[in-house]
Amino acid sequence: MRTFDLITGESLLVKDLRVVRWEQYRLDRDLPFQAMWYSVPPGSESPLDQHPELELSVVVAGTAHVLTGDAVHEIRQGSAFLLSSTEAHVVQNRSADQELTIFSAYWMPLATDDRDGVVRKESNPAGRPVRIVAAGHD
Amino acid sequence: MRTFDLITGESLLVKDLRVVRWEQYRLDRDLPFQAMWYSVPPGSESPLDQHPELELSVVVAGTAHVLTGDAVHEIRQGSAFLLSSTEAHVVQNRSADQELTIFSAYWMPLATDDRDGVVRKESNPAGRPVRIVAAGHD
Repeated sequence: MRTFDLITGESLLVKDLRVVRWEQYRLDRDLPFQAMWYSVPPGSESPLDQHPELELSVVVAGTAHVLTGDAVHEIRQGSAFLLSSTEAHVVQNRSADQELTIFSAYWMPLATDDRDGVVRKESNPAGRPVRIVAAGHD
Repeated sequence: MRTFDLITGESLLVKDLRVVRWEQYRLDRDLPFQAMWYSVPPGSESPLDQHPELELSVVVAGTAHVLTGDAVHEIRQGSAFLLSSTEAHVVQNRSADQELTIFSAYWMPLATDDRDGVVRKESNPAGRPVRIVAAGHD
């Protein structure tokens, strides 16, 4: 069994968000997705993000307000949300005093051929998805 | 965007664990894994479980003590653990008063052919992994 600690994981700052990227754990051969944690301080929000990968996010602390298009969704601790490929999103922490922390898994859209059980992965010459959050733009 | 609510999700009891299986959301074409939440009451533990799928678990509330072989790992809220294929495990909630809730994603071992970027999935004639927790044995 391997363990991954949110507190001691190597992190980087993107704006005022603490991002712990799972590349550091070198799990490419084991996981069918990439992953990260990110923490949004009280009153702050993530940069506008949009990417080809689907993204499943689980709120592990605090409450998220997720803005997509004209909609706002409130996601409480423990609950989850799935962003479609290329769906633009901002994640807000509207709390005055509690940090918001999210675990996110993300992967390229699946193209399943049910007849032979083969999944063809999108090619990714750069070896790593392009993500606004990951790239540190803001 | 789709949202998945831990509280209102359809659940079943396995021993005294509340299990919310994600099959109800019909995400097979979108997610490269299966998923569930499970909640372990204070002082209780999961049945001994062992299955071919790798399993990544994120603690979304409480603290988990995970028993594998002779080892015990303490995993706090927000942190995660990855079980290998066929690794037997028990998840304990040693708290006297706080519920433990875990989000788990699980998938068959990957067999990646790096040359053509094709992932061949293990065949699964039954259409669904066999899991002691899922089957409700105890």
